Amino acid sequence: MAKEHLLKWLQEGNISVPGVLLSNYKDLNLNECELVLILQVISFIEKGNDFPTPVELSSRMTISVSECTDQLRRLIQKGCIEIKEEITRDGIRFEKYDIEPLWGKLIDLFLHKEKRESQLKHQQDET
Amino acid sequence: MAKEHLLKWLQEGNISVPGVLLSNYKDLNLNECELVLILQVISFIEKGNDFPTPVELSSRMTISVSECTDQLRRLIQKGCIEIKEEITRDGIRFEKYDIEPLWGKLIDLFLHKEKRESQLKHQQDET
Amino acid sequence: MAKEHLLKWLQEGNISVPGVLLSNYKDLNLNECELVLILQVISFIEKGNDFPTPVELSSRMTISVSECTDQLRRLIQKGCIEIKEEITRDGIRFEKYDIEPLWGKLIDLFLHKEKRESQLKHQQDET
Amino acid sequence: MAKEHLLKWLQEGNISVPGVLLSNYKDLNLNECELVLILQVISFIEKGNDFPTPVELSSRMTISVSECTDQLRRLIQKGCIEIKEEITRDGIRFEKYDIEPLWGKLIDLFLHKEKRESQLKHQQDET
Repeated sequence: MAKEHLLKWLQEGNISVPGVLLSNYKDLNLNECELVLILQVISFIEKGNDFPTPVELSSRMTISVSECTDQLRRLIQKGCIEIKEEITRDGIRFEKYDIEPLWGKLIDLFLHKEKRESQLKHQQDET
Repeated sequence: MAKEHLLKWLQEGNISVPGVLLSNYKDLNLNECELVLILQVISFIEKGNDFPTPVELSSRMTISVSECTDQLRRLIQKGCIEIKEEITRDGIRFEKYDIEPLWGKLIDLFLHKEKRESQLKHQQDET
Repeated sequence: MAKEHLLKWLQEGNISVPGVLLSNYKDLNLNECELVLILQVISFIEKGNDFPTPVELSSRMTISVSECTDQLRRLIQKGCIEIKEEITRDGIRFEKYDIEPLWGKLIDLFLHKEKRESQLKHQQDET
Repeated sequence: MAKEHLLKWLQEGNISVPGVLLSNYKDLNLNECELVLILQVISFIEKGNDFPTPVELSSRMTISVSECTDQLRRLIQKGCIEIKEEITRDGIRFEKYDIEPLWGKLIDLFLHKEKRESQLKHQQDET
């Protein structure tokens, strides 16, 4: 019996969260609830569901379906998530979430901070 | 220059979040902010800081130092995190966070749900 | 420019290898080359290519295409990998690798070792 | 009983392998056995053992202790791993493995390939 449980646990998988996201989401103007919502979206995508509904997402969270819808909209407005329209080989349109914009914003922020840090260091070296 | 940035990014590491935690923290009676606080603690531990202060933790979060202190206390009361006292080889006492209690609670919940599910399935098969 | 590089690096992703696999593949009768081949298969699957060819796999490894074909066959014979046949919604047959058998074998081995260990401990306690 | 097993499995942890390493170790002049040896070293480091012995490392691999010693030496000669000497607060010298040189080499290779690729693209655009 222990085997089935372990297998099920393994199948639930792991999601790998970059340390840089965890230490910088605040400066991306995201709060904790929005961060977790993004992690939920990533988790669904990794398991093959590219367009989880607010019902699916909020069922694992402490927020209501309508709050979830609002937060998704805000994440799109903030440019962290995009909805992409694609077409299957048999011509059926479908939508999916794309979180690459988040990585782009995070990298911009990271590089900006790195630059500022090296400038500060430069100034200190000169004085 | 790109090299240093990539190296720095890599050094910030990744934290691996079990899918089961992401889909069940709500049933552990945790909210999103508490979940992220736990991820921050794990992240500090993985980088060798076993006892991050509320100042360090809250600096990466949208909560104040005193809210962070409160939430840490609540996580301890809920039995998700423990503070362990240890002694270095040269006799110095130090404290560290232990998050094993969280995994214990999560596994209990997971096994409980699995059991209930197999019972339900059993009942359906019988009728 | 650094941005594109970081983004590309991120897109290459991470694969999460269970510590139990790394410390027990030998007892699953796998050698290092077979382990890496399995990791390559997992990596392709996670990026959406469920049935990488021996040409694709061997191009990232130090083995030839024909050696890769042989090793894949052996992994199937050993019961670590399966080829599954599925059908798309528009009726096209396709094949994909399934590595769940590996997790099953790994869990069996793990539970067997745990049992043996607790028996040994029991015997020691009795004497 | 299932609980202890799951907890033990979790404690064995996961190691996160960058996709870029998996698709480029060959071009770093590493073979599969050397790659796995590096993963074993990383795994020991992440669990707090910074200087695993050839006996510890080879016990999880299909190679002998002396082969393991040889391969570690070769990894150091190739500039993938370094041995660092450090001193504890109470003045005891100890050695530890440092795998940062590997990330440095991997990033160099990655950036070199990216550059070559963008040059090729440039040339194609011009013709």
